[in-house]
Amino acid sequence: MKKIVLIGSGNVATHLGQALTNSGVQILQVWSRSLKNAEVLADALNAEAINEFSKLTGEADAYVFSVKDDALLSLINEFPFEDKVMLHTAGSVSMDIVQARTQHCGVLYPLQTFSKAKPVEFKEIPLLVEAGNIALLEELEALAQQISNSVHRASSDQRKWLHISAVFACNFVNHLFAIGQEILEGESLPFDLLRPLIKETSDKAQLFSPKTVQTGPAVRHDHQVMNAHLDMLEGREDLKQLYQLMSQRIMQE
Amino acid sequence: MKKIVLIGSGNVATHLGQALTNSGVQILQVWSRSLKNAEVLADALNAEAINEFSKLTGEADAYVFSVKDDALLSLINEFPFEDKVMLHTAGSVSMDIVQARTQHCGVLYPLQTFSKAKPVEFKEIPLLVEAGNIALLEELEALAQQISNSVHRASSDQRKWLHISAVFACNFVNHLFAIGQEILEGESLPFDLLRPLIKETSDKAQLFSPKTVQTGPAVRHDHQVMNAHLDMLEGREDLKQLYQLMSQRIMQE
Repeated sequence: MKKIVLIGSGNVATHLGQALTNSGVQILQVWSRSLKNAEVLADALNAEAINEFSKLTGEADAYVFSVKDDALLSLINEFPFEDKVMLHTAGSVSMDIVQARTQHCGVLYPLQTFSKAKPVEFKEIPLLVEAGNIALLEELEALAQQISNSVHRASSDQRKWLHISAVFACNFVNHLFAIGQEILEGESLPFDLLRPLIKETSDKAQLFSPKTVQTGPAVRHDHQVMNAHLDMLEGREDLKQLYQLMSQRIMQE
Repeated sequence: MKKIVLIGSGNVATHLGQALTNSGVQILQVWSRSLKNAEVLADALNAEAINEFSKLTGEADAYVFSVKDDALLSLINEFPFEDKVMLHTAGSVSMDIVQARTQHCGVLYPLQTFSKAKPVEFKEIPLLVEAGNIALLEELEALAQQISNSVHRASSDQRKWLHISAVFACNFVNHLFAIGQEILEGESLPFDLLRPLIKETSDKAQLFSPKTVQTGPAVRHDHQVMNAHLDMLEGREDLKQLYQLMSQRIMQE
């Protein structure tokens, strides 16, 4: 696959487009409903910006749909060509919805959290691939290996479980950081104080199995401290409930 | 403070003892209820191992109590000397319980998660200090600055809030990693797939305010994905409850 069209200009499209370009793939066009958004990414990738499917080139080896989950189905149905390779990048969406259009279908799911503001080391990102036939799967795998050292086959079902595990281990984790910040700022203490601890917690998870390095009052079954914490959270019912739920699970380990 | 006795031989005592020794402080003795545990640490610090308070030397400038919270009070009461400097290292314990014995009391709380298996960069660890009088506070601050670049004064009350924020941002975070692993292993997928994502989530928190970089279905108010996830968690009530609680909080941000 040497020539690709990107449908979408969000965080995933941006980082994926950059990685593909860097590996020598040509991005022919970037489509977005907003021409302005298409232009920002197209300019960076030396591609043409479009905001109408009528302007789609037929010359690409693959069309990569990287849009919000709820926009994906209608865009796939509006796609004007038959028998072109159509890929999507969504963790929680089955390959079926593309397969309903063509057997030249596949999925290229990067298991990472992307922000436009922060560059990522794309080579380290696990890429999960799936395709409607074995020839395309091998092509897709070869493409994925050009941009990442961590390429794995995964079924739609496995991908959904990966996605939900990422919601717990990334999205909810980030929200716990936000709760930490909320608590500290309520006491006029800077979030900076928590940063070394956050780094160490993550570093440990790189080296060990998380269950084996659990620390804190719950794993010690230290009810004195846990009860004191629950008293402190009096009046903040959601935090109290969260504290209880997490501590109970940790105590059961 | 040049000569210190450590009461306790756990993770905090071990890392703190090592950092103090490296900065030129002499650890005279290590006390532990188990002589064997005392010996392991005492050997590493070139100190004497003891398991009885009757063998405590009176020569130290300070006695650092670094034991489990529920053992702390009785050990402080059993301490045989009057008018020696007594410090503890616990996040969630007020200074009062030492102050009841002596005005030469203080707290040196390292805000970090320690495992014996993994060395830490002690210089980076925030140390929170408190003392019963200003002269001792300044002495303690000077000692803390010998071993860390991040020394801060904090009241007993502030320290308690710091400790609870650390439970959310570290202990509970680690448990979310364990949940991720539990989900993946249930689908025969390796935890390794989540590690780059975990690293990136933590790296982002070093640079940005967590609220501003929240990702995932909840912050997008993507009810289609959230409902699909809740369906997948059917029969795992605690995970479902956790998913709902976290998503609701994120949606309110």
